[in-house]
Amino acid sequence: MSKSYRVAILGATGAVGTELLALLRERNFPLSELTLLASEYSAGKEIQFGTDRLTVKTVQADSFDGIDLVLASAGGSVSKQWAPIAAKAGAVTIDNSSAFRMNPDVPLVVPEVNPEAVTQHQGIIANPNCTTILMSVAVFPLHQVQPIKRIVAATYQSASGAGARAMEEVKHQAQAILNQEPAKAEILPYPLAFNLFLHNSALNAQGYCEEEMKMVNETRKIFSAPELRITATCVRVPVLRAHSEAINLEFDEPFSPEAARQILAKAPGIKLVEDFGKNYFPMPIDASGKDEVLVGRIRQDISHPAGLDLWLCGDQIRKGAALNAVQIAELLIAKNLL
Amino acid sequence: MSKSYRVAILGATGAVGTELLALLRERNFPLSELTLLASEYSAGKEIQFGTDRLTVKTVQADSFDGIDLVLASAGGSVSKQWAPIAAKAGAVTIDNSSAFRMNPDVPLVVPEVNPEAVTQHQGIIANPNCTTILMSVAVFPLHQVQPIKRIVAATYQSASGAGARAMEEVKHQAQAILNQEPAKAEILPYPLAFNLFLHNSALNAQGYCEEEMKMVNETRKIFSAPELRITATCVRVPVLRAHSEAINLEFDEPFSPEAARQILAKAPGIKLVEDFGKNYFPMPIDASGKDEVLVGRIRQDISHPAGLDLWLCGDQIRKGAALNAVQIAELLIAKNLL
Repeated sequence: MSKSYRVAILGATGAVGTELLALLRERNFPLSELTLLASEYSAGKEIQFGTDRLTVKTVQADSFDGIDLVLASAGGSVSKQWAPIAAKAGAVTIDNSSAFRMNPDVPLVVPEVNPEAVTQHQGIIANPNCTTILMSVAVFPLHQVQPIKRIVAATYQSASGAGARAMEEVKHQAQAILNQEPAKAEILPYPLAFNLFLHNSALNAQGYCEEEMKMVNETRKIFSAPELRITATCVRVPVLRAHSEAINLEFDEPFSPEAARQILAKAPGIKLVEDFGKNYFPMPIDASGKDEVLVGRIRQDISHPAGLDLWLCGDQIRKGAALNAVQIAELLIAKNLL
Repeated sequence: MSKSYRVAILGATGAVGTELLALLRERNFPLSELTLLASEYSAGKEIQFGTDRLTVKTVQADSFDGIDLVLASAGGSVSKQWAPIAAKAGAVTIDNSSAFRMNPDVPLVVPEVNPEAVTQHQGIIANPNCTTILMSVAVFPLHQVQPIKRIVAATYQSASGAGARAMEEVKHQAQAILNQEPAKAEILPYPLAFNLFLHNSALNAQGYCEEEMKMVNETRKIFSAPELRITATCVRVPVLRAHSEAINLEFDEPFSPEAARQILAKAPGIKLVEDFGKNYFPMPIDASGKDEVLVGRIRQDISHPAGLDLWLCGDQIRKGAALNAVQIAELLIAKNLL
């Protein structure tokens, strides 16, 4: 019989936590024990897991004793506090927050891109930003054939990227607007229903927001390509689930759309969605709940001899967060590292 | 007393026609007579214009006798049929359709960019594509200081860009989804509420859609810059009104964001909307109903030494169509060409 593992989920009640639970069951993850941990605020909540009803416990110093794997999705400050404690207790933490991503001692892993990086872990492995994961999966297969020199990205990020409550708020806003009442913004900074706005994460001195800088810095780290040049404009749109991205790639030499198409059609984690006859390409409603990043409308960039345009949609809660984390755990198991 | 003009609106019942009527009143356009023309389908409809109630007449061969100015917004085939007849009758047609835009004998005019082009008209002046007008207004003042070499654009185009009925359809779709019912798409190719999709205009052999090629070809013509390199990804988003655009510009030499900001702050037709402290930048709900193109988050592109990123929102029915047409008419009057 193959080995099974004692797993703790830190932050099981959020959007990503909910998806993690679903994926552990769906993928028959070899669990011998499942512990749900959270801050005092969420402790005591009961969550159904298959036929079991699990009670969320308050995370504390001895929570990680005997745990093999921690899947953390409770935010950066929670991870910062507890991942090192879990590591000392001998567990491996796969962390969904941004707390450790740029730490040189912490691997930042997209299994389709840099699976070998997991071997370098010292108790913590970081799961990249959702928008970054989706782009990485879609463009890395091309980068392997011919190094990408520059990326110009524009994103179309769904409300659920700001959390389950933001998604509910957009629905309430939409209903208010349809009723010709004012749309209240409490979770989101501005009304998002029938509107959109630039991603409202903190801006740096150069005017880039954090989300954009994650795409820049995390992609470089995941690709081991510190010289890769990236600019991005991140935008929140009134979509409930799944992010979309318009990606412009520059190479040194021309990269034919047909060659790119053939490479991406065979690449892991990607589904080509291109029907030029029907003008049908990836849409968020088609990407929602899917494991694959949908890629389509691959075009020779007519403004650059070695440019390529492509469009993608992916479920940012699934592949952009929970699925990627579970895949990392599966990778650890496959490599006998758990 | 200054001169006044006999004006006909061809296609007065659509979204742009409605806005044209509002603008003629709002801007005190010197009208001596206003005739509303349409196909037989819309003829007989009554439209309120100030204190007058005007009846839409069927357009026919003698409709343009004695008319000075035709504002046409009834689609390409209607314009193709009637604009030459209006020209023969001595009227000047300002045409909102794409029918004549790339005709070398027809000026394609954005008054803030190439007002002098109106002098070349031979009875027809073309009003550019909405997305193109908004981008032109925002980037031409920079192009004048240092020629733009390349543009990478991604758009976020509202439902009303597909017509008033598409806008209503999105509302119905949103209500259906909120009621957990299926969203019907009859005007639009796919459900747009809480979703988005690549602009569904016809694709060329290179995989660019017509809307994208309008941005490429029309911008070159308006700027008199046939060598200007442009790529664009046009996307329909579930916003009711006003288009947004993420624009990446490349120059030969660095263009500082501060210099760009100072130039755009003084440029005609632009309102700078940039509050980095509050993370507040242009949004479609703020651009709706406004004459100006809202521009903000001007950034040095960190991926290109001579690159600049900016973000814009503009009311595509107003400045993107009706207002631009009325401004062209005002320009003709100012130049004694009407």
